[in-house]
Amino acid sequence: MKQEGEMFVVSCRPPMAVASTRLSTRPPIYHSNLILRFLALVLSFISALSLAASSSKKNSPRPSSFADHSELLYCFVTSVLVFVYSAFQLFKGIYDVAQRGILISDKFSDYMSFILDQVAGYLLISSSSVAILAIQQIDKTESILKAVIISTTVSFVAFLVIVICTLFSGYKLCKRISW
Amino acid sequence: MKQEGEMFVVSCRPPMAVASTRLSTRPPIYHSNLILRFLALVLSFISALSLAASSSKKNSPRPSSFADHSELLYCFVTSVLVFVYSAFQLFKGIYDVAQRGILISDKFSDYMSFILDQVAGYLLISSSSVAILAIQQIDKTESILKAVIISTTVSFVAFLVIVICTLFSGYKLCKRISW
Repeated sequence: MKQEGEMFVVSCRPPMAVASTRLSTRPPIYHSNLILRFLALVLSFISALSLAASSSKKNSPRPSSFADHSELLYCFVTSVLVFVYSAFQLFKGIYDVAQRGILISDKFSDYMSFILDQVAGYLLISSSSVAILAIQQIDKTESILKAVIISTTVSFVAFLVIVICTLFSGYKLCKRISW
Repeated sequence: MKQEGEMFVVSCRPPMAVASTRLSTRPPIYHSNLILRFLALVLSFISALSLAASSSKKNSPRPSSFADHSELLYCFVTSVLVFVYSAFQLFKGIYDVAQRGILISDKFSDYMSFILDQVAGYLLISSSSVAILAIQQIDKTESILKAVIISTTVSFVAFLVIVICTLFSGYKLCKRISW
């Protein structure tokens, strides 16, 4: 706010400009993280969807549901959990661009991201391993077979994405703590 | 080496004393790491041994070998790999007390430890998940059932130990690199 003669000139920037400035001043790791979160979101969604959609096919020779196999149910629940977690992380990342640290404090967020990334990674590799075993046991005539193969492959790729997210969040946490 | 009058007094410490001084000047994280490596070594040994020993029981009602089930073979191979890796890390840790960084340079060692710890952790959780599924499928009359349960439980505990090792090696690596 500047005083010019007897007039007050109030300088203000629109909120969009503030957001874009904040985005451009953030390190490249921040953008990579947002892209990876979005990738994890899409992959876990495809993994869960392929299992859910296959169960509704009633005109196949031998209709079957993923809920009949406990391993596939585990795989489905894991994918849904990772989807919800990725959606939250993506929302938080985009929200932080506008209003830094208001949603959750940065310190708590770093700890939480690191722990939950680790848990998500271990859950995904565990469910993928179990699903590979399920593929061997499912009868080749069952309609669900193709869906399980797609779901397992996509779930494994999501695991690799989450592993990279874990490295990023681990690095962020390490920079924060002074052990 | 001090000169006293016309005599030379050479002061020297025995190698053991040098080693103990090195050990005492190292941070507590170093000792914890050695203990964890030893724990992982013992646990992976028990996991592999319980599977191997069960296969040799010929006088049970239905003799069976873990090699008949591909999931248990995977579990056995993983335990052996983690055992070899833990033995190497323990050897390196003890060797470093005497002669720091001569076996492998500290920088390379930090990178290697972090990557291999991650791989070991993911392999252990994957094999444990698969083994849990195998337990459900093995006939209750088979002699191998008890051994598989012991092996899976111990393998899961080894996984938790390796996870803590991963945190330590990740922290060590983070301190080294200046991203």
